[in-house]
Amino acid sequence: MGGDHAPSATVQGALAACGAELRVLLVGDEATISRELEGGAPDVVRHVEIVHASEKIDSSEDGARAVRAKPDSSVALTCRLVREGRAHAAVSLGHTGAMMAASTLYMRRVPGVMRPGIAVVLPSREGPVVMIDAGASADARPEHYPQLAAMGRLFSQHVIGVSNPRVGLLSIGEEAERGSEMVISAHALLRDTPGFVGNVEGRDIPRGTVDVVVTDGFTGNVALKLYEASAAFLMAEIKDAVTSSIRGRIGGLLVRPSLRRMRERLDPDTYGGAHLLGVQGMSVIGHGSSNATAVANAIRAAARGVREGLVERFADEISPPKDTPPA
Amino acid sequence: MGGDHAPSATVQGALAACGAELRVLLVGDEATISRELEGGAPDVVRHVEIVHASEKIDSSEDGARAVRAKPDSSVALTCRLVREGRAHAAVSLGHTGAMMAASTLYMRRVPGVMRPGIAVVLPSREGPVVMIDAGASADARPEHYPQLAAMGRLFSQHVIGVSNPRVGLLSIGEEAERGSEMVISAHALLRDTPGFVGNVEGRDIPRGTVDVVVTDGFTGNVALKLYEASAAFLMAEIKDAVTSSIRGRIGGLLVRPSLRRMRERLDPDTYGGAHLLGVQGMSVIGHGSSNATAVANAIRAAARGVREGLVERFADEISPPKDTPPA
Repeated sequence: MGGDHAPSATVQGALAACGAELRVLLVGDEATISRELEGGAPDVVRHVEIVHASEKIDSSEDGARAVRAKPDSSVALTCRLVREGRAHAAVSLGHTGAMMAASTLYMRRVPGVMRPGIAVVLPSREGPVVMIDAGASADARPEHYPQLAAMGRLFSQHVIGVSNPRVGLLSIGEEAERGSEMVISAHALLRDTPGFVGNVEGRDIPRGTVDVVVTDGFTGNVALKLYEASAAFLMAEIKDAVTSSIRGRIGGLLVRPSLRRMRERLDPDTYGGAHLLGVQGMSVIGHGSSNATAVANAIRAAARGVREGLVERFADEISPPKDTPPA
Repeated sequence: MGGDHAPSATVQGALAACGAELRVLLVGDEATISRELEGGAPDVVRHVEIVHASEKIDSSEDGARAVRAKPDSSVALTCRLVREGRAHAAVSLGHTGAMMAASTLYMRRVPGVMRPGIAVVLPSREGPVVMIDAGASADARPEHYPQLAAMGRLFSQHVIGVSNPRVGLLSIGEEAERGSEMVISAHALLRDTPGFVGNVEGRDIPRGTVDVVVTDGFTGNVALKLYEASAAFLMAEIKDAVTSSIRGRIGGLLVRPSLRRMRERLDPDTYGGAHLLGVQGMSVIGHGSSNATAVANAIRAAARGVREGLVERFADEISPPKDTPPA
């Protein structure tokens, strides 16, 4: 029920992604979804099932509070379906905070994982770069970094398909002793992480110097939103510049198809939005602005994570601390 | 002596900026600079004076250490000229860390200023945005933010020319209670800052929602380097896309003049690079890649700060804490 183009984009995206190997449960208002499914090809629609949710969380509500107050909201119910084993993955185009809260509350953390982290896939000169944490926790501690690095690396390997991901720690200088006190401590703890290449800087994200960038949720969220908006800003400036003269306008018409292909290639929605890693199930939060293609990509990315056993891999790699019994 | 195109770009930039109202001291190896000045128009060259520096700091050296070890390096000597009243401003295209260290060591902090901050001027959809701190301190405390905000606001007003700057705190949500613990505490301390509009997010930098973005030096440095590199990345991708077809190549030739004008308009070097605010004198750190125009802009921005009495304004606004005697 969430997202700017709901329920149409969500339902059409689900129909595009589903098939014999991938069934989709559509969680939300049954009547609305049924109407949306009318006219769909019967051999496609049969891979889809509606799960009625009587409540809906609004974008103006506080996510964590709303999830507790509305256990029958579509987002809460979706995460409960995973908890109950009726689904392997939860995908939402709605309220980010609500989806994070519902995922943590209902899907629960993988034993040993101290804090879930949001992984996003960013375009770069050298291909997709995974950044983790893009905003799950506003305050990190050094001991969170190796877990974030492990989850990011496994995500890069098994969902993006990078065989030996290079892992960098986001800082403000390349040397191990450069950065905030927290990042300097984190650097020391990351030395044993496979593929760890040391510190990277903000510029290394667009340059694609590494496959996985590890950072705290505050820095990561600032970087994510800055990066997305800087692309939009430059494209708008280019459009203005080109359309300001007749010569430019003619040139603009000629370059438009190339630029369109470029934008599609760099589209972050190719990898399905933000992935909350560290809970017991795949949890994907798509952009509110997602169209049907982006929704289908989010569903496929979640399915890839399930098939590759990502959650089990996290559990294997991140063993519970020795002083607490396994959950 | 610093910078990728030294001494040529530095000397040519100085010649472009100097005049009856603006004299430039060129600090470095006398013989090298003299050679570079040969052939300059006599009525321009007479506004320039050479100050010989027998040492030079290499980009591979640790800045702070090198400044102490080489008191006669060009960067150390430049900052001493300000301290001694022989110059009003110091401009360097060299080692950022060395220039920061030399400025703090020789120019000293403005009484009451806890930590100097680096202000950079970033392009946005709505015009120049000042971000402070872009990397002077890797670790901030909440009480640093109001001082950074005050310095950034006065810089925006008197160097950029914004009459009533809007000031935003960089965070990961617009509400006052969103962000890291440090940023939430900083928000409370910023309430009395003139023009304070509350939290802004990474996306607000390219959008130009505010005139001044206040942040810690870690986040600010990551954001600065990401923003610079994302523009370079997109321009490279556009070039690739356009030149991949004949149609695109023809279009590319037609749009090229418009794009060049756009790039010049958005060029961050228009405002002279990074300004270390909070020391007793203007201290400007230009890009190592600066050409003569960028050098001239850095010198002019420094001169504007001097004419507007920026340092005195900082001293007036940031009074020393009551429990310490004024320096």
